[in-house]
Amino acid sequence: MTIRFGLLGAGRIGKVHAKAITGDGNAKLVAVADAFPQAAQAIADQYGCAIRTIDEIEAAKDIDAVVICTPTDTHADLIERFARAGKAIFCEKPIDLSLARVKACLDVVRATKATLMVGFNRRFDPHFRAVRAEIDKGTLGEVEMVVITSRDPGAPPVEYIKRSGGIFRDMTIHDFDMARFLLGEEITEVSAMAAVLVDPEIGKAGDFDSVQVMLKTKSGKMAVISNSRRATYGYDQRIEVHGSKGLASAENQRPVSIEVATGLGYTRPPLHDFFMTRYTDAYAAEIASFIAAIGGKGKATPSGEDGLIALALADAAVKSAAEKRTVPMSEVLG
Amino acid sequence: MTIRFGLLGAGRIGKVHAKAITGDGNAKLVAVADAFPQAAQAIADQYGCAIRTIDEIEAAKDIDAVVICTPTDTHADLIERFARAGKAIFCEKPIDLSLARVKACLDVVRATKATLMVGFNRRFDPHFRAVRAEIDKGTLGEVEMVVITSRDPGAPPVEYIKRSGGIFRDMTIHDFDMARFLLGEEITEVSAMAAVLVDPEIGKAGDFDSVQVMLKTKSGKMAVISNSRRATYGYDQRIEVHGSKGLASAENQRPVSIEVATGLGYTRPPLHDFFMTRYTDAYAAEIASFIAAIGGKGKATPSGEDGLIALALADAAVKSAAEKRTVPMSEVLG
Amino acid sequence: MTIRFGLLGAGRIGKVHAKAITGDGNAKLVAVADAFPQAAQAIADQYGCAIRTIDEIEAAKDIDAVVICTPTDTHADLIERFARAGKAIFCEKPIDLSLARVKACLDVVRATKATLMVGFNRRFDPHFRAVRAEIDKGTLGEVEMVVITSRDPGAPPVEYIKRSGGIFRDMTIHDFDMARFLLGEEITEVSAMAAVLVDPEIGKAGDFDSVQVMLKTKSGKMAVISNSRRATYGYDQRIEVHGSKGLASAENQRPVSIEVATGLGYTRPPLHDFFMTRYTDAYAAEIASFIAAIGGKGKATPSGEDGLIALALADAAVKSAAEKRTVPMSEVLG
Amino acid sequence: MTIRFGLLGAGRIGKVHAKAITGDGNAKLVAVADAFPQAAQAIADQYGCAIRTIDEIEAAKDIDAVVICTPTDTHADLIERFARAGKAIFCEKPIDLSLARVKACLDVVRATKATLMVGFNRRFDPHFRAVRAEIDKGTLGEVEMVVITSRDPGAPPVEYIKRSGGIFRDMTIHDFDMARFLLGEEITEVSAMAAVLVDPEIGKAGDFDSVQVMLKTKSGKMAVISNSRRATYGYDQRIEVHGSKGLASAENQRPVSIEVATGLGYTRPPLHDFFMTRYTDAYAAEIASFIAAIGGKGKATPSGEDGLIALALADAAVKSAAEKRTVPMSEVLG
Repeated sequence: MTIRFGLLGAGRIGKVHAKAITGDGNAKLVAVADAFPQAAQAIADQYGCAIRTIDEIEAAKDIDAVVICTPTDTHADLIERFARAGKAIFCEKPIDLSLARVKACLDVVRATKATLMVGFNRRFDPHFRAVRAEIDKGTLGEVEMVVITSRDPGAPPVEYIKRSGGIFRDMTIHDFDMARFLLGEEITEVSAMAAVLVDPEIGKAGDFDSVQVMLKTKSGKMAVISNSRRATYGYDQRIEVHGSKGLASAENQRPVSIEVATGLGYTRPPLHDFFMTRYTDAYAAEIASFIAAIGGKGKATPSGEDGLIALALADAAVKSAAEKRTVPMSEVLG
Repeated sequence: MTIRFGLLGAGRIGKVHAKAITGDGNAKLVAVADAFPQAAQAIADQYGCAIRTIDEIEAAKDIDAVVICTPTDTHADLIERFARAGKAIFCEKPIDLSLARVKACLDVVRATKATLMVGFNRRFDPHFRAVRAEIDKGTLGEVEMVVITSRDPGAPPVEYIKRSGGIFRDMTIHDFDMARFLLGEEITEVSAMAAVLVDPEIGKAGDFDSVQVMLKTKSGKMAVISNSRRATYGYDQRIEVHGSKGLASAENQRPVSIEVATGLGYTRPPLHDFFMTRYTDAYAAEIASFIAAIGGKGKATPSGEDGLIALALADAAVKSAAEKRTVPMSEVLG
Repeated sequence: MTIRFGLLGAGRIGKVHAKAITGDGNAKLVAVADAFPQAAQAIADQYGCAIRTIDEIEAAKDIDAVVICTPTDTHADLIERFARAGKAIFCEKPIDLSLARVKACLDVVRATKATLMVGFNRRFDPHFRAVRAEIDKGTLGEVEMVVITSRDPGAPPVEYIKRSGGIFRDMTIHDFDMARFLLGEEITEVSAMAAVLVDPEIGKAGDFDSVQVMLKTKSGKMAVISNSRRATYGYDQRIEVHGSKGLASAENQRPVSIEVATGLGYTRPPLHDFFMTRYTDAYAAEIASFIAAIGGKGKATPSGEDGLIALALADAAVKSAAEKRTVPMSEVLG
Repeated sequence: MTIRFGLLGAGRIGKVHAKAITGDGNAKLVAVADAFPQAAQAIADQYGCAIRTIDEIEAAKDIDAVVICTPTDTHADLIERFARAGKAIFCEKPIDLSLARVKACLDVVRATKATLMVGFNRRFDPHFRAVRAEIDKGTLGEVEMVVITSRDPGAPPVEYIKRSGGIFRDMTIHDFDMARFLLGEEITEVSAMAAVLVDPEIGKAGDFDSVQVMLKTKSGKMAVISNSRRATYGYDQRIEVHGSKGLASAENQRPVSIEVATGLGYTRPPLHDFFMTRYTDAYAAEIASFIAAIGGKGKATPSGEDGLIALALADAAVKSAAEKRTVPMSEVLG
């Protein structure tokens, strides 16, 4: 069975998904839509698919599923439309920056029984998945503490930051989802500290560029997240899971793994400097998992609910940093 | 010039210092005192020093300096006595578990102009020192975030824990001092989370066995500490310092560094399983630094004030974990 | 400009090249030929190319280049045919197992001025290339000694070994080429030692399964190669280049890079267990380099001459192991 | 029981042994002898032992064992004298540079039933010992191939080299002994290649500075040794043992194990730059093993015979490099 795809949004991340879909033996990219004709044309040229409007894709009989890569503020509307149109939906994170809007959207998804998967790509990184597999196998015993390091090579433009919902909703949200993926138990408490250390302009825009967050579940399992918008040595993405029987960790990835030794010491090259090259394999596995779920193999995970909780954790972190107190998740999720 | 030492306390840590003193070309172990005659005798036998009472050491003309390794509740009294007796004093951490008592004790030290050094041995670990040297050289630019991992191979007996002042004052106190050593700026805010995950008996004793702490300085530099009383793979002691120009980290140490590869993978042996073997070099360097300071080369550091602030940070962490809020240091230090 | 390809041979390595060609934006796979219709059909189905006979591909106006992946004993004949037909030729190693036959074949290539590239894929591994780049940059100063480790996860079937020309011509030949790639100077002396340690059947077939070789150039630069048909921990492929100013090394690659720490130690997963997954990137870069050379960007390297010399080195190693003496290359190359 | 030592030779290596003896609870340094009074005095001052002549030590009733650290050309004579005097003997390698002289010396040792241990300190390195322990435990199955890397930070003075017996007898001899220690079977064939790449003066002195050697045992086990008098990045000392079930390797040691990451990459400091700091632990364990053997615990190993065979391997390597052929050990050992 071949899943036939419509791609909504032909920007940077849209191209990544177009490549993943066309490279998957069980999928076919039928059409692409984008407000910018040139962007759509580029994908149509490279992968031999049609260019259509969003309306046309919604109405199309030859399309089973859509991948939503449009601007964030259109996500919830498009999810609702395509849920009603009976298409399976893969939507880039976040569903929306407003928790209320996400909840309303998920009501529609639930009512229409639509398949919805949210794009937390890191769950599909082979190294992180292998750590999770060790938890599932019981190698680590009972999970006790999770340590997540996530540092970007550089800050995005301040214009981007202004529309991003802030660092907790834009960047840490991936780590919140990863913490849940690894803790295996719902988080009940959030405590965050935030500072502006990289770029004062980010502070002027009302955001932070350096944050650390502590999380706790009901039974006392804990996680700590360390974020920065700056890492001169590349894209720093590490996880550690400490359990009663041991530790599993995923180290950083570099494009070239050589070592040069001179009188100055032993030097290995910097890490990947871009999330797309770092997570190439993850993006392909993510779409493959979505395709499998549509085909009845496994559930579409992470779900809309996963997207909702990650956003709620971000909201709690914003509150905690502002009010200098531990915020119970009940306060945010209601 | 040879510094002549009296050793107060011939227990486990006393033996470590006896070895360090006798192995140092600029020092001589003159006498040892211990309430248990056998313990004192063992050190006298091994290193050829005299056995004396504390009173005799206090009065001795042939002793320049003392190393205090007696139980914690005697530290402050002994510091005051030997400060008045004009001896240089090295005291194991902590000075006392009560902040008020420490302050009173330091008043005496100040009044007598005594030399006092407090035993935060990790500052003298060659690897941690090398990280600090990179900061001082400017390799890392402005320090932004410090990450400290400190996990013990196993929990001490509950009886020990009951007298320890709790995990923050007993174990995390080392990490508080390390954070200060690396941040290079006073900490102004403390936020802690704590749980009992390793041994319910520790919880019954009113303590925790798994904690994480976030720290912040006035200018926004931050640190995060991750502690556990359990690490099946050995004594896990790592630091990371992230700065505007880069990262310096000190990895774990193992007694034997081989690797065995089979069909099951590549395996290296566990880490050191004991703080004394892990920090052998640090203990020797610590005493050497004390000896140098007495001889006029450099200051006796970490000082009594350093001991005071580390304890205050522990007090703030206790408060933060209990009250689920960020505690300003002004609240604790007054 | 798009290079139009005919693929000769649709077996295991043919599939690898088919994928590389169709994944390259500057190439198109036009036709495939194979004595087994099913093998050709599988590639035709997957990549939408035609099935043709070798004669048809030879005569085709719509084909610019061929990739020869047929059995070794057909290589030289096919190279000659397609050289005369004016096609650019990529041929899997070796050109032939007989040095005389290779020489005759290269005479035809020279006479027809055909473009010929030989498939020493390891030269295109990004890690090995990065080591070579350090040499070219001068980081290592003058190259002095090269150390090459190459161990297969397991021995091929004895039937394969009987037709392989022996371990030096089948397996070590890659390392001979790598040594030349890194030494940057022609090898003048070869000394080899060989044993049967893995499988007595290999010995009965007149071959070895464990060999080590020392090489020397005229100016005294040296290389050592260590080979085994057995490596329980995966596909062991390492190089070290020691120069007057330093060392560059490429470490092994593993599909998943996590580490699990327990009381038994720190364990990382085994290496890649198959040359195709280990050298995925190398195969793609190799074909891209061939396509670029046809398009006039750079030379087709490794050349037929490179293939000839690698085989001559293997012949010298065979002789050295048998006669227990260092064999000068002049003796083999004439 | 305390073993009472006389130290013959108070130079660089003599000091190392003086420290090891005095640091061992089962030994006492009674006297030191050296042709240079100042050298003897320095050791007498530091460790509180007597200064005596060699004759006095030979006649002394209060000395059980001697450590011979005098120039190489005195070793064999001293061994014979002290064997006849009934002392246990530890002698630095080599016993002599002449195989015939060594054989004659060992005849005396055998006749007098003296305890003789030869100083191949690397056998006592904890990391190399741990590799050997894996062999003994059976983790690696049957040993197949040993790879030994040994590169010095820099060449010694040419004056030293002239008296050294050449690189094979001076430097590689350690690796010959290590190969035997790890192969567990006598070596029957030696093939060597040698070059002058580091310093032309070494060539003028008739020696080499860069060599590689292949070894083989009767059953076909093999070893390869790679040596250079130059390694800009420190003292490069690695071993790999490949067996039928797996691989064990010992990696290099560095005094400080931190890592600094910047835009230029990840850099660790250079290795130890001196054999004495690299092998500090080995020297102490070596003397401890000698003391234990005198006390009846275990044999004095490596023995005089081990010293003899290592020298014979060096002689075979010299011959092989000169005559460009594999030299059977029977040719050298007779």
